[in-house]
Amino acid sequence: MNLILLHQKEVSDSSGLVRLQGRRLRHVLDVHRAAKGDELCVGILNDRIGTGKVIRLDSTVLEMEVRLERIPPAALPLTLVLALPRPKVLRRVLRSVSSLGVKKIVLLNAVRVEKSYWQSPFLEQEAMNEQLMLGLEQARDTMLPEVRLCQLFKPFVEDELPGLITGTMSLVAHPYAEEPCPRNVQGHVTLAIGPEGGFIPYEIEKLVACGFQLVRMGERILSTETAVPALIARLF
Amino acid sequence: MNLILLHQKEVSDSSGLVRLQGRRLRHVLDVHRAAKGDELCVGILNDRIGTGKVIRLDSTVLEMEVRLERIPPAALPLTLVLALPRPKVLRRVLRSVSSLGVKKIVLLNAVRVEKSYWQSPFLEQEAMNEQLMLGLEQARDTMLPEVRLCQLFKPFVEDELPGLITGTMSLVAHPYAEEPCPRNVQGHVTLAIGPEGGFIPYEIEKLVACGFQLVRMGERILSTETAVPALIARLF
Repeated sequence: MNLILLHQKEVSDSSGLVRLQGRRLRHVLDVHRAAKGDELCVGILNDRIGTGKVIRLDSTVLEMEVRLERIPPAALPLTLVLALPRPKVLRRVLRSVSSLGVKKIVLLNAVRVEKSYWQSPFLEQEAMNEQLMLGLEQARDTMLPEVRLCQLFKPFVEDELPGLITGTMSLVAHPYAEEPCPRNVQGHVTLAIGPEGGFIPYEIEKLVACGFQLVRMGERILSTETAVPALIARLF
Repeated sequence: MNLILLHQKEVSDSSGLVRLQGRRLRHVLDVHRAAKGDELCVGILNDRIGTGKVIRLDSTVLEMEVRLERIPPAALPLTLVLALPRPKVLRRVLRSVSSLGVKKIVLLNAVRVEKSYWQSPFLEQEAMNEQLMLGLEQARDTMLPEVRLCQLFKPFVEDELPGLITGTMSLVAHPYAEEPCPRNVQGHVTLAIGPEGGFIPYEIEKLVACGFQLVRMGERILSTETAVPALIARLF
């Protein structure tokens, strides 16, 4: 936790005082090992970043005086369209992409996505927000990414995706593509990444018909967890 | 498992016949859902890649006729010097870097590495090889990476690292560096990545004195798991 993420309602309007218990208190005690007078990096969810001066810290409570002076780092100009990975991987990928600055995520169905994945409790908004907020705390950001669940591939790709990709460079990562993934791109990108085992040929055809270009990351087939940060770091 | 990794001794010299049980049999049954006559991608550890034609497959055994015709993909020209992460993260990072084609890994101590991490059973050679081989199977590679454990920072950096980095571009990833991490590098790179919380100033000084240059990946602080594939994909 490189930034302590606060909700607006936790901070007193008049004095800027905040009083924390639970996970954040324990982290400040056990990992930061902070003491009275220390200044910690804090931020308000979907708002500014600043410092929290510790005015009381013991095993029951952390009290800080909060001053907010900076805006959060810029978002990555990226929409990530990701075939839903298995639940445990999803949690880590959400944390990872949140820390990388991705703000628009679409979790999409595909033939090689196991149906049971859509029943996972990790897909509940609160569970996803927890992972996304851990990513923000890691990266010192406050702007919560938005996640859409699209359980029907065909209507999404036919009816919504064309509008979503307008004005963006639209790429689908595919191990057998000829073109290498471009580097250091300027402007907005829509990046589609298939499930383990890849999009099936029909899905690739639909994405190409929609305007996507196939790109590859070398001759190695990467797992979702490795491919996602690797592709994002290559692009930006 | 995009490649079934075999040991040389498992393959009959005269007929190229291989007989598998256990994890690889189950994977071919449950995930590949292969049938008699199918050709699967196989490779011999530290040797060539080819196809295995299924001649028998049931719940007790997989028999294949193996033909090996290709050499494995080229190694990344990279030596990764990584401050030892916590054991669960280590397992995933080993898998990830193995899939990315890294062949030389040094796991290094640092002040912010918890001492208990060095006692983890995941650091035993067999346990590390298991993760590295999963990475090879993922990426269709056969060349097992080499991992060195260096539990003493100072003698390693003073006595061994200067020789190790000779002729390479030597970079240390550091969130507060001024220089961005270079892209699309030609030639061999030595990349040092600190623990969660970073190398301490003394450690950074020692690395700089040894010839390392500080580079950064944007203004976000990334976890080891995200930083490692992101930095490697940026570099190559």
